Amino acid sequence: MPHTPDPITTLQNINKLAHFNTWAGLEIVSASPGSAEIAIDWREEFGQYSGFLHAGMVGGLLDTACGFAAVTQVGLVLTSHFSVSCLRPAVGARFIARAKLIKPGKTQCFARAELFAINDDAEKLVATGEAIMVVTG
Amino acid sequence: MPHTPDPITTLQNINKLAHFNTWAGLEIVSASPGSAEIAIDWREEFGQYSGFLHAGMVGGLLDTACGFAAVTQVGLVLTSHFSVSCLRPAVGARFIARAKLIKPGKTQCFARAELFAINDDAEKLVATGEAIMVVTG
Amino acid sequence: MPHTPDPITTLQNINKLAHFNTWAGLEIVSASPGSAEIAIDWREEFGQYSGFLHAGMVGGLLDTACGFAAVTQVGLVLTSHFSVSCLRPAVGARFIARAKLIKPGKTQCFARAELFAINDDAEKLVATGEAIMVVTG
Amino acid sequence: MPHTPDPITTLQNINKLAHFNTWAGLEIVSASPGSAEIAIDWREEFGQYSGFLHAGMVGGLLDTACGFAAVTQVGLVLTSHFSVSCLRPAVGARFIARAKLIKPGKTQCFARAELFAINDDAEKLVATGEAIMVVTG
Repeated sequence: MPHTPDPITTLQNINKLAHFNTWAGLEIVSASPGSAEIAIDWREEFGQYSGFLHAGMVGGLLDTACGFAAVTQVGLVLTSHFSVSCLRPAVGARFIARAKLIKPGKTQCFARAELFAINDDAEKLVATGEAIMVVTG
Repeated sequence: MPHTPDPITTLQNINKLAHFNTWAGLEIVSASPGSAEIAIDWREEFGQYSGFLHAGMVGGLLDTACGFAAVTQVGLVLTSHFSVSCLRPAVGARFIARAKLIKPGKTQCFARAELFAINDDAEKLVATGEAIMVVTG
Repeated sequence: MPHTPDPITTLQNINKLAHFNTWAGLEIVSASPGSAEIAIDWREEFGQYSGFLHAGMVGGLLDTACGFAAVTQVGLVLTSHFSVSCLRPAVGARFIARAKLIKPGKTQCFARAELFAINDDAEKLVATGEAIMVVTG
Repeated sequence: MPHTPDPITTLQNINKLAHFNTWAGLEIVSASPGSAEIAIDWREEFGQYSGFLHAGMVGGLLDTACGFAAVTQVGLVLTSHFSVSCLRPAVGARFIARAKLIKPGKTQCFARAELFAINDDAEKLVATGEAIMVVTG
């Protein structure tokens, strides 16, 4: 991966390659070495049967944020394992996932993320996640 | 939830309510008490940056299969926690997730699922997952 | 459980009932509503095959710290699920686990913990963990 | 690690090096390429505050079984991540953990295990677990 000087540009370039992210309107909100923040605006097609954000979207945001936090420091990665704790119903006009790389490594990385639902400018923590990734390039 | 005599019909009725599932073209392949099998056909917008099935889709399929396996036996559920092990790149023309309820319960259920990529009628195990769910109705 | 005014005394009383904790010499270092800190001094019988702290001890410390953090706020709990990320070889003269309750609840709680190895007064993060618990009394 | 022709002997040799396993009286019950079965007899010092098998022992047995299943096929490993689902109170005169290697690999392995409590010759599934390991030699 051609690292650019600016982590946000690096992540935006990768983000464009992921069709799922493009479909979801996923934005890179901020990025610095070891950290990344991404967001989506709610759309009805993100919902599960009772109208909350679908587990696939919850997990996808948390894992993507973890992956992007890793990319800012170690280059491209693939996830080996991720887990999600669903603390509260994920209901919001917008969702922000913030991730931190806990342990970079040459072959394996560990990151952790939090997902917030935003309603009327108030943030509520709705889910947490963690990911283990292997460095690919 | 109005339980119907037929688990497949029960799941199809819930599936219709989940806009994410409808968007993904998620089908109920089979269902029996404590088991469920769901599938999607590959579409480009399911892809991550290198064209594999996105972690959000992998996790969404595994968690949904676990939830549906629970529904066949205990009624509606919400996931508290799920985890995903990504064994191999998820590349396929079609993906099938098969879940089993390991431990039903009045308040808490445990299920496990496997995700297979299908290419030319050959199935390959690409991910495994597990979910803990609370029974809601 | 008869809650005492002081969270440390509450945890010490429970700690005495757990024979595994007594065997390990597990100490309550600090406690406040929603937080707990526990420690053990290294002994050879805690080791795995290459002399690092055994996964059973790593997981036991992280899960116990999570449980104790919950007890300070919601009463007795039983773990439904816990997970452990082993970031670095757990080698130390002493180990401290610090946990925070992320989401209390009437039936279900979520907590997170970190395990530090201590050598010559320097702390190193060696593992992280999380636990989901059901409230029992 | 000097691989012996017999997987049980290989595991017994490693088992002797782990002081925690020796303390716990951990036995290798059976082993074959990709599988391992280990057991302990209940002792009071394995208990948590209400007398069930302590989470540290539950996790230690599940993770050790996963590690031993991997050793039979890929050589020595270290765990990166493991998780435990506690399905039922772990009460028994004896406990057996059975693990299978799901995905061997040159650098990373995935395994899954089940823990059974034995009372009067009847086995009951009390916990399940999974582990991701890196191959070290």
